[in-house]
Amino acid sequence: MRCFVTGAAGFIGSNLVDRLLRDGHQVCGYDNFSTGQRRFLAEAVQHRDFRLVEADLLDREALNAAVKGHEIVFHLAANADVRFGTQDPSRDLQQNTIATFNVLEAMRAGGARRIVFSSTGSIYGEPLVFPTPEDAPFPVQTSLYGASKLAGEGLIQAYCTGFDFQGFIFRFVSILGPRYTHGHVFDFYRKLLDDPSQIQVLGNGKQRKSYLHVEDCLAAILMCVEKSRDPLQVFNLGTDEYCTVDQSLGWICQHVGLTPQRRYTGGERGWIGDSPFIFLDTRKIRSMGWRASHDIKSSVIGTLEYLKQNEWVLSRH
Amino acid sequence: MRCFVTGAAGFIGSNLVDRLLRDGHQVCGYDNFSTGQRRFLAEAVQHRDFRLVEADLLDREALNAAVKGHEIVFHLAANADVRFGTQDPSRDLQQNTIATFNVLEAMRAGGARRIVFSSTGSIYGEPLVFPTPEDAPFPVQTSLYGASKLAGEGLIQAYCTGFDFQGFIFRFVSILGPRYTHGHVFDFYRKLLDDPSQIQVLGNGKQRKSYLHVEDCLAAILMCVEKSRDPLQVFNLGTDEYCTVDQSLGWICQHVGLTPQRRYTGGERGWIGDSPFIFLDTRKIRSMGWRASHDIKSSVIGTLEYLKQNEWVLSRH
Repeated sequence: MRCFVTGAAGFIGSNLVDRLLRDGHQVCGYDNFSTGQRRFLAEAVQHRDFRLVEADLLDREALNAAVKGHEIVFHLAANADVRFGTQDPSRDLQQNTIATFNVLEAMRAGGARRIVFSSTGSIYGEPLVFPTPEDAPFPVQTSLYGASKLAGEGLIQAYCTGFDFQGFIFRFVSILGPRYTHGHVFDFYRKLLDDPSQIQVLGNGKQRKSYLHVEDCLAAILMCVEKSRDPLQVFNLGTDEYCTVDQSLGWICQHVGLTPQRRYTGGERGWIGDSPFIFLDTRKIRSMGWRASHDIKSSVIGTLEYLKQNEWVLSRH
Repeated sequence: MRCFVTGAAGFIGSNLVDRLLRDGHQVCGYDNFSTGQRRFLAEAVQHRDFRLVEADLLDREALNAAVKGHEIVFHLAANADVRFGTQDPSRDLQQNTIATFNVLEAMRAGGARRIVFSSTGSIYGEPLVFPTPEDAPFPVQTSLYGASKLAGEGLIQAYCTGFDFQGFIFRFVSILGPRYTHGHVFDFYRKLLDDPSQIQVLGNGKQRKSYLHVEDCLAAILMCVEKSRDPLQVFNLGTDEYCTVDQSLGWICQHVGLTPQRRYTGGERGWIGDSPFIFLDTRKIRSMGWRASHDIKSSVIGTLEYLKQNEWVLSRH
């Protein structure tokens, strides 16, 4: 396939680029390097089937030119941090909603018709059903990030009906693994390096969350792209388990051999819009034959190992 | 209340302006007159409690200045035509999604915290449950219009969580009544004036749709605004009945005394993204004490009477 990957220098994007190249595909990566890391593409840029375009998704001219000639777009670029939406609401609108619109328009202009979209379990807001299935009751958004991903999903769905696109929407839980650059393992590890004696925990530590290893995430996506002929598919991606923030912090402390005093900021939510319980029903993707091969604990520890071996990542933020 | 109405010169907006002024409120109307009609505000502009701002919602400076000092915003401005989304996808993005974002940001800057939003039953796509309740299974969008209203809903919901806004989201069926300027009664009546001997019907005529009179629509909205203290409310608005396109055309033909030959374009849908069956569950709004006082047939005929007495409206499009 002639593949186009937005956010190619990001955590998931760069892992996808490497996987697609290994599988023998031609890949064009697109990134503005606002959060993407050149080192994540160090191997890819040596590959003859890889091309890198350094540009912004809000630059429609550059985007239209770059998308042209590709068969499938993996649209992973996003403002991926759910926590800071209220500090600058325009960021989610621009980088997620409008950027997704621009990608769809570039595809329409350039003849690409297949799109894979990284959506989020945050789109369910604070669901009433657990594990939460894809057809859960119409949710209420609790974060600007979730709202912007919902807008992106809606656009893709409308393009599937209106312009005969084929859309694959994946609602991720938090993803872990090599090249992980933000999230709770990152935050906790950095805090422990700063001060091994005590650690601040956002909320009461009892928030329940699910996590998925990036390899499992990519395996699910590529299996669906290969197997499905439906015009539109929406899949939850996650593991069939969850852990509390406290549990995860326990694994991290044990692994690094520290026993910091935990200081809780309190409350059921770590920040405005934090969902106290994220646990997705993954029966649909499993019915296609996919299974997660990493459990949460091993993913957390693997991520920690990656951060220990790549401490340069910690200083980039 | 110090009320701010976007789309004040539109069908629903101008009816709302008149109603708010009758109820003794101060009203600022905002319209770019792209589809709004000055004649709809002829009475309002004579009123000492009315002020008109002629500007675009994409002009953030004008909008911020105008919103300042108001308590509640009735955000009715929109590209309201679901049919032509694929001709120019940027229109729904700009006029619905981004315009709603601009309204929210102007409110945040100007200290307004209550917002009423005109959403749509089209947001349910092609639902599987009838009548369709507010918490129907998470829908799939089938039109750019629906996708843009979904994006607007999500933004408002996120502002309720993130910035302590109070949001009222109303998902309308098609609205009928005085100052009606687009939709099937408008189209059929204009076609019959052009050629009384035959009439083209989009689709197979068997599409089932629900309609609501604008007076009932406004009564529901104002009742909720008065009664509800919840931070966020989502309500379907419609009648507890539906009719087919063929039935409605029958009432229209009978009322104007014509028997045109019907020519169907065929298919279950009148256009790309047309939903063959729209029928909303209104138990939630009825549980607040509201009842529709007009049935569909009388609303269709009343609308036709309005168009007959105001044929200038037909030539405006």
